[in-house]
Amino acid sequence: MPEWIYPDFELRPKRPLFLCIISNTDTGKIPGLSAAGTTPELTDYTPGADAELVETNRIITMPELPEAPGGSPTPAIVTKAALNLTGIPSLFVASGLRMKPAVPFAELGGQAGSDIRKSPALPGARALYENAALLGKKLARLSDCVFIAESIAGGTTTALAVLRALGYDGNVSSSFQSNPTELKQKVVAEALNRAGIRDGGLKSDPMRAVEQVGDPMMPAALGLMKGLAGCKVVLAGGTQMAAVLALGKALDIQGDISIATTKYIVEDKTASFKEIVQSVGRPYYYSDPGLENSRIPPVQIYAQGYVKEGVGMGAASLLAGLYGFSQKQLVEETDRVLMTVELPRK
Amino acid sequence: MPEWIYPDFELRPKRPLFLCIISNTDTGKIPGLSAAGTTPELTDYTPGADAELVETNRIITMPELPEAPGGSPTPAIVTKAALNLTGIPSLFVASGLRMKPAVPFAELGGQAGSDIRKSPALPGARALYENAALLGKKLARLSDCVFIAESIAGGTTTALAVLRALGYDGNVSSSFQSNPTELKQKVVAEALNRAGIRDGGLKSDPMRAVEQVGDPMMPAALGLMKGLAGCKVVLAGGTQMAAVLALGKALDIQGDISIATTKYIVEDKTASFKEIVQSVGRPYYYSDPGLENSRIPPVQIYAQGYVKEGVGMGAASLLAGLYGFSQKQLVEETDRVLMTVELPRK
Repeated sequence: MPEWIYPDFELRPKRPLFLCIISNTDTGKIPGLSAAGTTPELTDYTPGADAELVETNRIITMPELPEAPGGSPTPAIVTKAALNLTGIPSLFVASGLRMKPAVPFAELGGQAGSDIRKSPALPGARALYENAALLGKKLARLSDCVFIAESIAGGTTTALAVLRALGYDGNVSSSFQSNPTELKQKVVAEALNRAGIRDGGLKSDPMRAVEQVGDPMMPAALGLMKGLAGCKVVLAGGTQMAAVLALGKALDIQGDISIATTKYIVEDKTASFKEIVQSVGRPYYYSDPGLENSRIPPVQIYAQGYVKEGVGMGAASLLAGLYGFSQKQLVEETDRVLMTVELPRK
Repeated sequence: MPEWIYPDFELRPKRPLFLCIISNTDTGKIPGLSAAGTTPELTDYTPGADAELVETNRIITMPELPEAPGGSPTPAIVTKAALNLTGIPSLFVASGLRMKPAVPFAELGGQAGSDIRKSPALPGARALYENAALLGKKLARLSDCVFIAESIAGGTTTALAVLRALGYDGNVSSSFQSNPTELKQKVVAEALNRAGIRDGGLKSDPMRAVEQVGDPMMPAALGLMKGLAGCKVVLAGGTQMAAVLALGKALDIQGDISIATTKYIVEDKTASFKEIVQSVGRPYYYSDPGLENSRIPPVQIYAQGYVKEGVGMGAASLLAGLYGFSQKQLVEETDRVLMTVELPRK
């Protein structure tokens, strides 16, 4: 195994499929919470634009390339680079998505998530879970290894809320270099208080945690995991996906389930990725995309902790390594993707 | 091979996938043209309800089971029965669909088709074609044999219009027992006249035929065919899919492409299924679902030429035979599906 991939991923899948769940919430629009969009209003467009970038290298429905406020481009560029190199097929899966992409995607339906401080997050969580399980069951007939990534602004805050409701005391990561931990904890405390949930109070009713303080990515990921039983499943993301692992354990979803992320997440001292995954008892993998070697400064700063993860960039980079590509090739292809992405004419 | 399947289908696929394109048009609402819905208004809901029936055996978004005016239930019941028996995964693909099903589906986008007498059918045909090709390319990595079915009211009339624009003089079939041939020819003549197209006038510009007098199922099927190059592709339908074959030839889409339908279509003396397919030069297969042996009279009358085809019932029946099930088992399962389908509470 190349040294930028850790630890050894057991087998190179024969017919891998890279899914990415795209969702919106009003929690993601709380100022200062998410770096997935230069303004809170634009966060509704970010997941669809990520889909457009990965599927066609064009941004169609959003006026600009999705960027963090510091100017870092969306992690979709790394995912796109890795999928370009490996030829692995992707499929975006809309779950509670307001702004639909102009590329093919799978639709699970559902409403966008609420601002969890103000009202129940997602009354339709169970229907999304059932729909996702139905889709997962089909995909299990076609693929031997399915990766499940996410693009949802504000997702680490809903992840934190769900972790607290399940009784985990770990912390979540952030797309900002400086994790707005206090703000997240304040939002989560308000949400749990509104819903009348004590820390650990929903250990035995995880779907209620999703309905009350979660987001639409969660029931989609959980349903897919359930439907994909018998197929290798790799959750592709950081602490958001670690929260999905925790929900999956509470729901007693069985199977060959693991999680893959970036070195940036694993080394994030403000977050508890490893601790959460280890207490769930699932294996984890990570990759170092080596973006400090990019020729483009807003990409270089990923290595300083901007963005860190999203659109499954860690798992996609891992796949590039598994398929025999070097870290250097991945970085060069990432730069090429960013330099050639087609933006809407203004 | 069991004798109700003709001729020998070369191989039993390893990882087959059954797609069904669902679309709406205003042509389908012209009174007397389509039997896919008891009233023209309900035809917008029929494709989504077919998806719901096949995916869950429940009708969710339509107030009743899709039926022809004579009371025959949607052919989706036969498709559902065959997919139940074989376990083959299905995926519905929305292309220009107004009323979305409440089950997972793939979304290609696009607008519903116009009434072809009044305005160009589908100005966005090329974008749908590109999106479908993108989806097809992914599916070719996962499946070795993809069936492409359709559920679109009024589809045989747009098929006839496209066949005329391409210079074919064959006739199309109908979901009515008594084919409203004169009405169809009148609609087609008006549409071609409006668009300034002479018979055979668009032989060398097939996509313009779709844009002017086609429907949203067509560019979706064509794009999938193109994207699926390298994978066995079986169009699952009657004269509508024969028109897609003709369009594919005119677009020079290469590959292992064939068509499968029911005996009811092949034996329809008012239509020219065999003639059209033979002049395109692609192989055809058909099955005899044996519905005269149903215990349910509205299903029995399929064998007298009601409904005839739709939602790929002919190809799905063929697959049941290939997988070793008998005609009797298929009929019994069809009856069971119809007896157990869950309808919305009134």
